[in-house]
Amino acid sequence: MRAYDLIAKKRDGGTMTRAELEFLIGGYVDGSIPDYQMAAWMMAVYLRGMTPQEVAELTDVMAHSGDMVDLSPIQGIKVDKHSTGGVGDKTTLVITPIVAACGVKIAKMSGRGLGHTGGTVDKMESVPGTRTALEQEEFFAQVNKIGISVIGQSGHLAVADKKMYALRDVTATVGCIPLIASSIMSKKLAAGSDAILLDVTTGNGAFMKTVPESIELAQMMVDIGTRNGRHVAALITDMDTPLGHNIGNSLEVAESMEILKGRGPADLKEVCLQLAANMLVLAGKGTLEECRAMAQAVIDDGTAFATCKAMFAAQGGDVRVLDDYSLFAQPEASYDLLAEQEGYIWSNDTEKIGNASVLLGAGRITKEDTLDMAAGITLHKKAGDYVKPGDVLCTFYGKAEKFAAAEAMYRSGLVFSTEKPEEKPLVYARVTTDGVEMLA
Amino acid sequence: MRAYDLIAKKRDGGTMTRAELEFLIGGYVDGSIPDYQMAAWMMAVYLRGMTPQEVAELTDVMAHSGDMVDLSPIQGIKVDKHSTGGVGDKTTLVITPIVAACGVKIAKMSGRGLGHTGGTVDKMESVPGTRTALEQEEFFAQVNKIGISVIGQSGHLAVADKKMYALRDVTATVGCIPLIASSIMSKKLAAGSDAILLDVTTGNGAFMKTVPESIELAQMMVDIGTRNGRHVAALITDMDTPLGHNIGNSLEVAESMEILKGRGPADLKEVCLQLAANMLVLAGKGTLEECRAMAQAVIDDGTAFATCKAMFAAQGGDVRVLDDYSLFAQPEASYDLLAEQEGYIWSNDTEKIGNASVLLGAGRITKEDTLDMAAGITLHKKAGDYVKPGDVLCTFYGKAEKFAAAEAMYRSGLVFSTEKPEEKPLVYARVTTDGVEMLA
Repeated sequence: MRAYDLIAKKRDGGTMTRAELEFLIGGYVDGSIPDYQMAAWMMAVYLRGMTPQEVAELTDVMAHSGDMVDLSPIQGIKVDKHSTGGVGDKTTLVITPIVAACGVKIAKMSGRGLGHTGGTVDKMESVPGTRTALEQEEFFAQVNKIGISVIGQSGHLAVADKKMYALRDVTATVGCIPLIASSIMSKKLAAGSDAILLDVTTGNGAFMKTVPESIELAQMMVDIGTRNGRHVAALITDMDTPLGHNIGNSLEVAESMEILKGRGPADLKEVCLQLAANMLVLAGKGTLEECRAMAQAVIDDGTAFATCKAMFAAQGGDVRVLDDYSLFAQPEASYDLLAEQEGYIWSNDTEKIGNASVLLGAGRITKEDTLDMAAGITLHKKAGDYVKPGDVLCTFYGKAEKFAAAEAMYRSGLVFSTEKPEEKPLVYARVTTDGVEMLA
Repeated sequence: MRAYDLIAKKRDGGTMTRAELEFLIGGYVDGSIPDYQMAAWMMAVYLRGMTPQEVAELTDVMAHSGDMVDLSPIQGIKVDKHSTGGVGDKTTLVITPIVAACGVKIAKMSGRGLGHTGGTVDKMESVPGTRTALEQEEFFAQVNKIGISVIGQSGHLAVADKKMYALRDVTATVGCIPLIASSIMSKKLAAGSDAILLDVTTGNGAFMKTVPESIELAQMMVDIGTRNGRHVAALITDMDTPLGHNIGNSLEVAESMEILKGRGPADLKEVCLQLAANMLVLAGKGTLEECRAMAQAVIDDGTAFATCKAMFAAQGGDVRVLDDYSLFAQPEASYDLLAEQEGYIWSNDTEKIGNASVLLGAGRITKEDTLDMAAGITLHKKAGDYVKPGDVLCTFYGKAEKFAAAEAMYRSGLVFSTEKPEEKPLVYARVTTDGVEMLA
């Protein structure tokens, strides 16, 4: 077998066999196939596409390029979730304790933030003392004991994906649905859960900008997971506006705890209930309606919050901050950004809000950047709100010298109008093996 | 400007501007754009194509990546020719002296052979003493004095092409008409002639296997040259069967001299007359009919052969071999390959004949191989001939220990039939700026 022939085959619209994918991915990981051949192959994939069977096999081959986590020492069904990323996307911190409180095991590995989107592991580390790097035995023992652990993703999962992603990033082959789907799902397959709920975010703050392409990606990922023996479903959620009001690590933890305490912003709560209910359905806990009621119940009776506290405590976190947010590391300064004109906020570019938050120190531009856990933004006015000059649009937290750049970034994403914009749905569609159910 | 964006533009079917092509090709030559980005871009070009203007500009940018030969010290119109390669393709040795004898200047750089096709410079060096590496001044002086010089191609022409070709060769982007056309024409533009006749060979021994794709390539090359201010035309010629009877360096020189002496195989003579006539037309010497008569006249009156002799003499060659072929270096051994069955030769794979000749030592597998100038094949029976067991199909020349491998290769390309195959035309079509004229 020669890489040349496999490039030519895909170039001509052919379908790779499993053996060919193993040769190609294996060779790329071990260095016998150079970047330029992989780049040519990936551009051919971008322009020629892949069949469902082919992309499912590619994903499995990529998953097997690194460690395959064996979660069998944990009793019961294990459910994972994945979000394609967003700004102020703190749903993992809310829904995993809810699901665990309903008796479904969560043994989850999460990523760190890069660019304008945040990462769950970073947010968790804003709770002082929290360890997110556990040895496998401790990880398993914690899940068996309290039903939940969320830790940082091992660097040894789907190692082919890391190398392929870096190459796609410089060869204009990132925005290719088979390659996006296999990249995400290879890590999920390797992470070992029986069921996976995908949150495919859509809109100006997300990777997928439109609902149809989000549905296409979701369908492909559901198909990949199903062909590889997992229970998979997806929700298409809105990311034209950040969920809730807070962006930034400790700010998002605080807001998440509010939901678990039965309070907090309605939009965040609604999305979390739908995501949690779908995870419970995948775990076989009942119908969607029953599962939603279950999720609501564990919020109402306090067991979801208690489960979250138990997780942080087990991982060394100072859980007093979850009750008293003033115990979080506090920002050096804060700054109210005032409206300069009257009208409806027609749009408030989510990616720019995310970038403003990165400029404040809440996120990373490069992998080496350190985070200011207290930095971030609280939104007081969101798209659709009516404002007058002098109204506080949002509050910045962080180092005072960073406010000017963040303000310029934030304001550049604001569009005002005399018209009230149409309200966006929170969840557009639900994708399962049965098909696509439009919800808006 | 970023390579990433240029890859994305071509990926999405966009058209590169001249500035973008200069950035891309310049960056690739100077190493600031890595192989993997160029590979992705070339695969996008392969699958998305290029507009005529775009490919003409790419070609000019590639030409300018190295030396641009200025032939203005040579008086009069300079005409070049290029063949896309073939087996036993010795037409350059015949037609350039004919054209020069008709008063049109030939200041030509030719390549060496690689793989199953031969190269003019190698063939010339079978004439003992012939120098094919002349300094520019000597080259110009010779053309001004005797009207013709054929030398080896400088390594400094179209340097981008060399690097791009090597990458295409390992990324399955060789067979892409815009990239083939720009590769060939970049060297021709750099070589400086005013007019260029292209011989686009077609068939199993050629790069282009079918007439329609040969015409497509020819049209693109004519268009590229015309947009860059040159007079260009092309003939689509047959390479399902080698031209003439001889394959191998000194064998082909001898056969070429036969044509110049008014003898030799009819097929070779006919193709040479058509090629020479078209070169003369491009040089403005008259109508096609007039030019053909002129070409025939300089053969008949001996001036074409005299011009050829003068060229070899000027370049140090021992021209006695051109009159007495027994003075060429002689092969160690010869071997008659006999027919083993009765019937028509239905086909005689030209690429395999070429490979057999390489195995005999007449060509190179790698650039470092040295040639046996006396090695080669004389074909006694060609496709369409009727043979009986024991008839001599061909004679091998070279080292006896190489005959077995060459025989196996040669025989593997032979197909016999009780039916006589249809006779193939020698020239399928003529492509000029006026369009395509089908000749068969």
